[in-house]
Amino acid sequence: MSEKTDLGWSEDPAPLLRVDDGFRLDEVDPHSTPGYEGNKKSGRRDLQYCTGELDDLQERLFAAHHDEESGPAVLLVLQAMDTAGKGGIVRHVVGSVDPQGIELAAFKKPSKEELAHDFLWRIRPRVPGPGMIGVFDRSHYEDVLIGKVRELADEAEIERRYEAINAFEAELAEAGVRIIKVMLHISPDEQKDRLMERLDRPDKHWKYNPGDVDERLLWPDYMQAYQTAFERTSTEAAPWYVIPADRKWYARLAVQRLLLGALREIDPQWPAADYDVSVERERLAES
Amino acid sequence: MSEKTDLGWSEDPAPLLRVDDGFRLDEVDPHSTPGYEGNKKSGRRDLQYCTGELDDLQERLFAAHHDEESGPAVLLVLQAMDTAGKGGIVRHVVGSVDPQGIELAAFKKPSKEELAHDFLWRIRPRVPGPGMIGVFDRSHYEDVLIGKVRELADEAEIERRYEAINAFEAELAEAGVRIIKVMLHISPDEQKDRLMERLDRPDKHWKYNPGDVDERLLWPDYMQAYQTAFERTSTEAAPWYVIPADRKWYARLAVQRLLLGALREIDPQWPAADYDVSVERERLAES
Repeated sequence: MSEKTDLGWSEDPAPLLRVDDGFRLDEVDPHSTPGYEGNKKSGRRDLQYCTGELDDLQERLFAAHHDEESGPAVLLVLQAMDTAGKGGIVRHVVGSVDPQGIELAAFKKPSKEELAHDFLWRIRPRVPGPGMIGVFDRSHYEDVLIGKVRELADEAEIERRYEAINAFEAELAEAGVRIIKVMLHISPDEQKDRLMERLDRPDKHWKYNPGDVDERLLWPDYMQAYQTAFERTSTEAAPWYVIPADRKWYARLAVQRLLLGALREIDPQWPAADYDVSVERERLAES
Repeated sequence: MSEKTDLGWSEDPAPLLRVDDGFRLDEVDPHSTPGYEGNKKSGRRDLQYCTGELDDLQERLFAAHHDEESGPAVLLVLQAMDTAGKGGIVRHVVGSVDPQGIELAAFKKPSKEELAHDFLWRIRPRVPGPGMIGVFDRSHYEDVLIGKVRELADEAEIERRYEAINAFEAELAEAGVRIIKVMLHISPDEQKDRLMERLDRPDKHWKYNPGDVDERLLWPDYMQAYQTAFERTSTEAAPWYVIPADRKWYARLAVQRLLLGALREIDPQWPAADYDVSVERERLAES
């Protein structure tokens, strides 16, 4: 961890948050702040502070690779129960860098056309190209989460999907895409408060959907589906991270940190000029 | 103009910047700041200040319409000579609102596949859907700008394109898309300085392309092509605005203002709940 940015972190949160062998979702406290010793105030300050480095790394990544046929990219996959804060991550973490370097894909309930194809059909074209940071707001994991809980596919098909996902993600990783899969983990109580706020405020009514309560009633089933998805698809090439999200400021800080980690590992460099700088200086001066 | 946001503006810049009958591009001073009496410092402050309203209006637009089959949208078309600041507009004006409500399309040199189709073929799928703010970083106008200057198409085809553009944009306007076409107007001297900076800074080398000087040498031809495009395609439904852009802060402020104007006219309202709020409050409380 570079000295200038450790700030309120007591240790690198990535290993603390990563889903490894023996991980149990029900042992994660949604209200905790693994690896971070600061509070909300310092968390917001640190988020702001690290925006500069994220911005710089993103621009380098774009500069070095966006015109290439192949090359590194970053893909952030966001999954969560309703109200857990996916939108806030997009807004406050991803939204802090240049929109030109971001490819955001929000996956809704599949259309008829999408349902007529394999579940990965609509996902593939949205994978970020070289030099880009892609963000999936929901993803192919819906097909093994709500797909499993609501029995939208039979068990054999769900089983097949875990394998298909691993093959798909391994292929992306091979092509240079750093995949960061994040589950924002909130508690049922926190969700209740957040949904209630949507009902209390007319400017938030549009964000509420009666179906949210229906899904909420299936909470244990969803947690089980997440647990299974973690066990089946948290791989070396594409690990899952479970981020406690009852405190929005912590979740944002942690996701920023994971993005920084991926970008630092890529370590993109300003590309050298593919023209003669002094010749161009002269041409320009004379123009 | 609402009182709380007139700030450094002495008058609404929209009519001052709009291309109407008799407009002459060569009479526009790229260093001027039409309608604005403040300086760089106040300009930056005003930009920041108005971000709140832009944000609010964008969220209302999204809330009210993004799930509809048809409805209002905004399309900002950005055209300019190299270095004029399109990227800065995307970053500092558009980038200040929620990325989820933005559809950004950067049109590069057309691919072989794109060239095999009509020039509007690659444009149509990128038109923003209901509730969205779309941004075209370059656009179908390239086909009557570089297309004309470099004689990539014959004269009859260029003529046909003006008509095709007007028909296309009228169709979009009819469907509820507010089209704001912006040319960022810089002076050749300012461009020289900005290109020279790219050559002076290794972290900017990637932004420089020797072809930029080739285009620069055709400056008068480009200005003539813009003048003709304005005369042929600045319509009631889709007017052009020429924004002096030697001062980046002014250009950003002016584009923000045009976006605010379009959104205020749409005047999007928070949608009413399509469910019974008190019933839901009870269901939620019991869940």
